[in-house]
Amino acid sequence: MSITKFLRAIVVIKILLLSHLVVAQSYSYDDIQKIRNEAFGNSSIRELAVQLTDAVGPRLSGGKGLHNACTWAKETLEGYNLYNTKLEPWGNFGKGWEMEKFYIAMKQPYYQPLIAVPQAWTGGTSGLQIADVVLVDANTEEMLLTYSGKLQGKVVITPFEKELEVSFEPLASRFTDEEIDKFGKSPEFRADPDPYMLERKRKSQAYGVSRQQLKDFCEAEGALAIIENSGSFGTVRSYGDRNGRFLDELGILTIDMTHEHYARMVRLIDRGIDVSLELDVKNRLIDDYSEGVNVIAEIPGVHKKLKDEVVMIGAHIDSWHAGTGGNDNASGVILMMEVMRILKQSGVKLDRTVRIALWTGEEQGLLGSKGWVEKHVYNFDTNEKGPEYDKISAYYNFDYGTGRIKGIFLHDNLALKPIFQDFFEPLDDLGVSLISNRNPGGSDHVMFNRIGIPGFAFIQDRIDYGRGYHTNMDTFERIQLGDLKQAAAVVATLVYQTANFPTKLPRKQLP
Amino acid sequence: MSITKFLRAIVVIKILLLSHLVVAQSYSYDDIQKIRNEAFGNSSIRELAVQLTDAVGPRLSGGKGLHNACTWAKETLEGYNLYNTKLEPWGNFGKGWEMEKFYIAMKQPYYQPLIAVPQAWTGGTSGLQIADVVLVDANTEEMLLTYSGKLQGKVVITPFEKELEVSFEPLASRFTDEEIDKFGKSPEFRADPDPYMLERKRKSQAYGVSRQQLKDFCEAEGALAIIENSGSFGTVRSYGDRNGRFLDELGILTIDMTHEHYARMVRLIDRGIDVSLELDVKNRLIDDYSEGVNVIAEIPGVHKKLKDEVVMIGAHIDSWHAGTGGNDNASGVILMMEVMRILKQSGVKLDRTVRIALWTGEEQGLLGSKGWVEKHVYNFDTNEKGPEYDKISAYYNFDYGTGRIKGIFLHDNLALKPIFQDFFEPLDDLGVSLISNRNPGGSDHVMFNRIGIPGFAFIQDRIDYGRGYHTNMDTFERIQLGDLKQAAAVVATLVYQTANFPTKLPRKQLP
Repeated sequence: MSITKFLRAIVVIKILLLSHLVVAQSYSYDDIQKIRNEAFGNSSIRELAVQLTDAVGPRLSGGKGLHNACTWAKETLEGYNLYNTKLEPWGNFGKGWEMEKFYIAMKQPYYQPLIAVPQAWTGGTSGLQIADVVLVDANTEEMLLTYSGKLQGKVVITPFEKELEVSFEPLASRFTDEEIDKFGKSPEFRADPDPYMLERKRKSQAYGVSRQQLKDFCEAEGALAIIENSGSFGTVRSYGDRNGRFLDELGILTIDMTHEHYARMVRLIDRGIDVSLELDVKNRLIDDYSEGVNVIAEIPGVHKKLKDEVVMIGAHIDSWHAGTGGNDNASGVILMMEVMRILKQSGVKLDRTVRIALWTGEEQGLLGSKGWVEKHVYNFDTNEKGPEYDKISAYYNFDYGTGRIKGIFLHDNLALKPIFQDFFEPLDDLGVSLISNRNPGGSDHVMFNRIGIPGFAFIQDRIDYGRGYHTNMDTFERIQLGDLKQAAAVVATLVYQTANFPTKLPRKQLP
Repeated sequence: MSITKFLRAIVVIKILLLSHLVVAQSYSYDDIQKIRNEAFGNSSIRELAVQLTDAVGPRLSGGKGLHNACTWAKETLEGYNLYNTKLEPWGNFGKGWEMEKFYIAMKQPYYQPLIAVPQAWTGGTSGLQIADVVLVDANTEEMLLTYSGKLQGKVVITPFEKELEVSFEPLASRFTDEEIDKFGKSPEFRADPDPYMLERKRKSQAYGVSRQQLKDFCEAEGALAIIENSGSFGTVRSYGDRNGRFLDELGILTIDMTHEHYARMVRLIDRGIDVSLELDVKNRLIDDYSEGVNVIAEIPGVHKKLKDEVVMIGAHIDSWHAGTGGNDNASGVILMMEVMRILKQSGVKLDRTVRIALWTGEEQGLLGSKGWVEKHVYNFDTNEKGPEYDKISAYYNFDYGTGRIKGIFLHDNLALKPIFQDFFEPLDDLGVSLISNRNPGGSDHVMFNRIGIPGFAFIQDRIDYGRGYHTNMDTFERIQLGDLKQAAAVVATLVYQTANFPTKLPRKQLP
């Protein structure tokens, strides 16, 4: 598109053929330029990122950090002069968890601090302890029982499955033209797996010792802690030991450790060299924030008939505890907050209401979005529609890391294709062109797709997401501020277009 | 070369034109096959790596770990039935240093353990302390003085120079054909820098505040600790605070910290948010191992006239304290030990004596190799030659990481080129072909090159060296066992060829 054409303030009226419908659709290049001016000329992305990651910190569901994050987000959104800004309860999460002290070091055969993270909702050590490490090598329950009476006060490790291999692949990459081309295609269709083989695999696994069996055994035997192997190069991936809800006591202290430090213990014990550790770990349950809430705010629509309809955007604001949740998912939260700021500040006309929802409890099973949908949109138990079921045009979600937006997933709703081809027209200079009919899940858009409301995830460049995701190094540094500026301009434009589209976006048939 | 030709046991007699000399040179394909059989069929690389990194651990000069390492290496070499195996003193190193406890965590604005490493030869905290962090932003001495009276009991940080940028480059790579081609060429020749600009730069730096000035100031003000920014993703690079020799007291506690945790504190304090830390650090000086030793062992030559001449191989066995010195330089040590084992076990004929030297004090300035050379080969103070000056044909060094060998540096001694072209002939199937006349330093081969004795470093694939070098993650995992097998076969072959070469390798003119 020529820049002259782009800068001219014109309203484009188009006639689109949408399956069997002929509808008029409008957006203004002038408005889209205003959105861009705000997104690139007046960005608040950096400061939002510092505030949410550094200042608020980890945001584990049920904890004080998440409470602080929600309060901060609500106050920040109020500062943008939005409407209906609130912390809206979605149900009971259960007890939160927080670290008060975490110290772990190898004591024998020589002293060295270890890089590790306790799993959420696990316990502590009753002060400083020195404990021997035992390598439990058990593929069957019988083998596990041979360790009876040998684990009292010990730290338990298990063999690691494979050695680290050097990687010749870059950790971050931009999509190549070839990959972009491939993404537009449907994936290869494969034959269904052989049911006989599936059954055989299931049976063979049933005879192994599961993680839960090992934990139960260690707990019953009075082991001090279990250490698991997770991550490398000092980056440790850590989740929760349990789903963390509705529990009244901490689980056995379970620790995730970087491969280098974990595998060393295995190799030493394998050679008959004793390993002992120093640990001083204090974790605690908290029930001050057990009610789950989502952060909600709106920009009211201005169209007489359409203002009761809604375009939603969202991201989950909760994180795991090991880092400060930079890419999972501060990047999504600050992006969507910035989109609200841009839409408000730029003053573009929005026919429909635009609503932001910052979900909590995502990491424990999309709890916040599920709770909200059940309250307002659809009851999954009774299959009854709620009051907003016919009001929501679309939901845009951002939770696939920080990389710039290359396109969108239609989630098996091909009727959306000509609409996004049109929406993307003024975005081609930002590199947005890709439309894929694939249907990836893994975040809160799933809750909308399940009931036919178009819920979108974006196709994004892969920037350090794999290395940051759920780790102690998922911090401010993992957020690519420049990429998020692009994403903010893109999402704001798409929301503006969706809000002013003649109809709600077409829904897919439910089974 | 055809495999048939390779397997045939023939002795190749060649006539080489070496500058003005015509000499006969011999090696046997049969012997080289024996070397390979031992290197690839009977490798001890993995077990040596486990023993030196995992079991012995960190090997800081002057410390118990290094003492254990030298003892282990001597005993292992004795197990290979070598001769003249000994720990040979080279002089007084001074006091060693070791960690007894290292715990550091952020206390405010929320609790989170920090990934960090104390610099060697720095002190501790007198038990568990809670301390505020102060950001000292001083480009001049006057600015520094404005912090007088404000640092007592505080932890000091300084602004970081730049934010981390995402990298789209792989962390490990094999040489491409294009790079190999470039390596064979001499580097670009540049004009000498403008002396006026150099002087100007020198003056402007003189007005800045140096690292040492900052430390002296903090020490005088009674600060608790200084934290520096070093590394990322949980990998922390850490050296010594001082050169560590001949000191009777510990320096101010100085800590290296991963960028993510360091930069967070800077950003928080910049925004007026208080940061406090918990620290419990105990380090101590030790003088049990202050005498510096090198580990020496030999395979005697069998040629009546040449057996008093020597081909030397070596690597430094000391490391920094943060990790277990996997690539810097366990890989070099175990490689050279394996070469000795291969040469001994394969039973190939060696005209000259082959000697291994495992140096200590390399990280503090090539101390071990310097001390050995001064005792046996050359007095750098008096410029007098020692008894072995005319005996040593060549010295091969391995300290550029774990990557497989692609070729050799001639170190500005072009007369070696036709010799290595010939030596490399039976190594082409192992990918060894590259001859570069460049003269890189950075390790113990420098001590030999300085006095004209050919001291060689190898051209190697770059495998994780940059990420491992001097870090807490320089462990067993950084050693690429497969690459080292190749390197062992290559070095053993070159040593065998050098030991049986008709003459000592030609020396370069000294200035």
